[in-house]
Amino acid sequence: MLPERSSEFRLIESFRSTTGASPAVVIGIGDDTAVVSASDGLILLAADMLLEGVHFDLATATPFQIGRKTLAVNLSDVAAMGGRPKYALVSLALPRQLSEHRNENFAEQLFEGLRSLAKEFETTIVGGDTNSWDGPLVINVAITGEVSAGKAITRSGAKVGDWIFVTGSLGGSIVGRHLDFTPRVSEALILREACHLNAMIDVSDGLVADLYHILEESNVGAFLNESSIPISETAASLADDRSPLEHALGDGEDFELLFTVSPEDGQKLTENNPLPIPLSHIGEIVVGDSCQLRGKSGMKTELPRLGWSHDVGKP
Amino acid sequence: MLPERSSEFRLIESFRSTTGASPAVVIGIGDDTAVVSASDGLILLAADMLLEGVHFDLATATPFQIGRKTLAVNLSDVAAMGGRPKYALVSLALPRQLSEHRNENFAEQLFEGLRSLAKEFETTIVGGDTNSWDGPLVINVAITGEVSAGKAITRSGAKVGDWIFVTGSLGGSIVGRHLDFTPRVSEALILREACHLNAMIDVSDGLVADLYHILEESNVGAFLNESSIPISETAASLADDRSPLEHALGDGEDFELLFTVSPEDGQKLTENNPLPIPLSHIGEIVVGDSCQLRGKSGMKTELPRLGWSHDVGKP
Repeated sequence: MLPERSSEFRLIESFRSTTGASPAVVIGIGDDTAVVSASDGLILLAADMLLEGVHFDLATATPFQIGRKTLAVNLSDVAAMGGRPKYALVSLALPRQLSEHRNENFAEQLFEGLRSLAKEFETTIVGGDTNSWDGPLVINVAITGEVSAGKAITRSGAKVGDWIFVTGSLGGSIVGRHLDFTPRVSEALILREACHLNAMIDVSDGLVADLYHILEESNVGAFLNESSIPISETAASLADDRSPLEHALGDGEDFELLFTVSPEDGQKLTENNPLPIPLSHIGEIVVGDSCQLRGKSGMKTELPRLGWSHDVGKP
Repeated sequence: MLPERSSEFRLIESFRSTTGASPAVVIGIGDDTAVVSASDGLILLAADMLLEGVHFDLATATPFQIGRKTLAVNLSDVAAMGGRPKYALVSLALPRQLSEHRNENFAEQLFEGLRSLAKEFETTIVGGDTNSWDGPLVINVAITGEVSAGKAITRSGAKVGDWIFVTGSLGGSIVGRHLDFTPRVSEALILREACHLNAMIDVSDGLVADLYHILEESNVGAFLNESSIPISETAASLADDRSPLEHALGDGEDFELLFTVSPEDGQKLTENNPLPIPLSHIGEIVVGDSCQLRGKSGMKTELPRLGWSHDVGKP
């Protein structure tokens, strides 16, 4: 019943010896728990589990990418609260068939993907759990963060009249970007310095689906201007049965920031984008509980709650 | 590639509505991250992933037991540091075959197992991640805790001359207790009030294997007195090819506390056990790097580093 411990120990030891230390880490990997110094204020807590065949495929994703992505989606959650990531715990179920010849190498590359992104975003991996089994690859990261400005940006603060913005461009992430995206941690911190963010979320389920999370939590409605939706080059070049716009509105895993600000702050951001990446004013918050798409011809379409699909407008 | 969201949403909503609130939880389940107030001092961080077919079997464990156990092993880690558990994040990969008819019921019972133990140990479940897939059941809990007395009890503080103690009785956990054990959170807090704990660990890999973790981290050796090892009734009644003593020394998942104290404190604990459960003085810390078993006849056996096995003494 117990997992094989010897290779697990080797992995932990290898990981332990190369994980960066932080002055606030009193005890890192290697005891019953990690011990870190508390700082004043608020602690952010989140976890994401990535599953082989659901969130990635071993035929197309490298172990480095899988490790990196699992941390990246957690960093994106912290970014969406306007926070700074601090500590991560990594839990791993490693398929035994990777174990005979490739295990340590595979796991080492996976850890390297985690480590490289952790270093980039000053996050310390303080512990976790490593297992081998006969099932598919499973990796879970739990993360803590802090909100240095003292207030977390939630989904529930959108106000009628707010302008809706999204960073970057959207759609077609599945072609590859979902494995290589940069979590918008720095952008969120720049934005919260530049203006007052009323509500924010990261685009993981899809633009419309995630906007609905804001609308529901804030008890408001919204409209989006079709001509303002930033469609990614990938989405624009996809030759399938969905339009580039449908991809931009509906595709998951873009991991861009979707947020609302007052019209005054919106004007400021439009005139002077403080970010090194594009920022698009895509719509406004209105009274109501639904989201409308305003077409270039002026036609209005109600967008379904659970994301774009072929029968959009006929939910 | 994306998981099915609708049943996931229902589960999260069901969980969200029934999870106990704590005044320090600013935002619980339902935003990008949970937000909790920081308290002064030290934060403990740990995670454990439990896998179907490795740590439990759906033929013999109920979903309630599986949920409960996953939190319990994390609580045991916090206990082993002398801490108080605070917040938990639950990540779940639920097999789709449980999904058609039994999913919500299965998941609900699993969450109920988590909730009941969380309530018992004043731990708030603040978030996590719920997925369905075609793989086996996977559940991960990440936990935070605090050390109210200001110091975590590590594995590295054992001193030559220390007396070695273990709570409860050992061996045969696999027969059932591994699914129903009570994490020794309260006992650890009582012990740290009653004496100065030099080193502590929970017995998850097995008495000898976990004692070696203390020995390695503290750079010391130890001897155990065979006649003092508390053998559980289950281990004593197991009719297999290993002796009750072998079970007590080698079996994993007892989740008792193994700790060392000065001889003075050891004397106190022996004269007046402050716990509502048995406490056994099983050996002493000595100079060296190995662990000896002193038999009833006076014979000394060196115990192998990676736990008891049939070829004990011939590692």
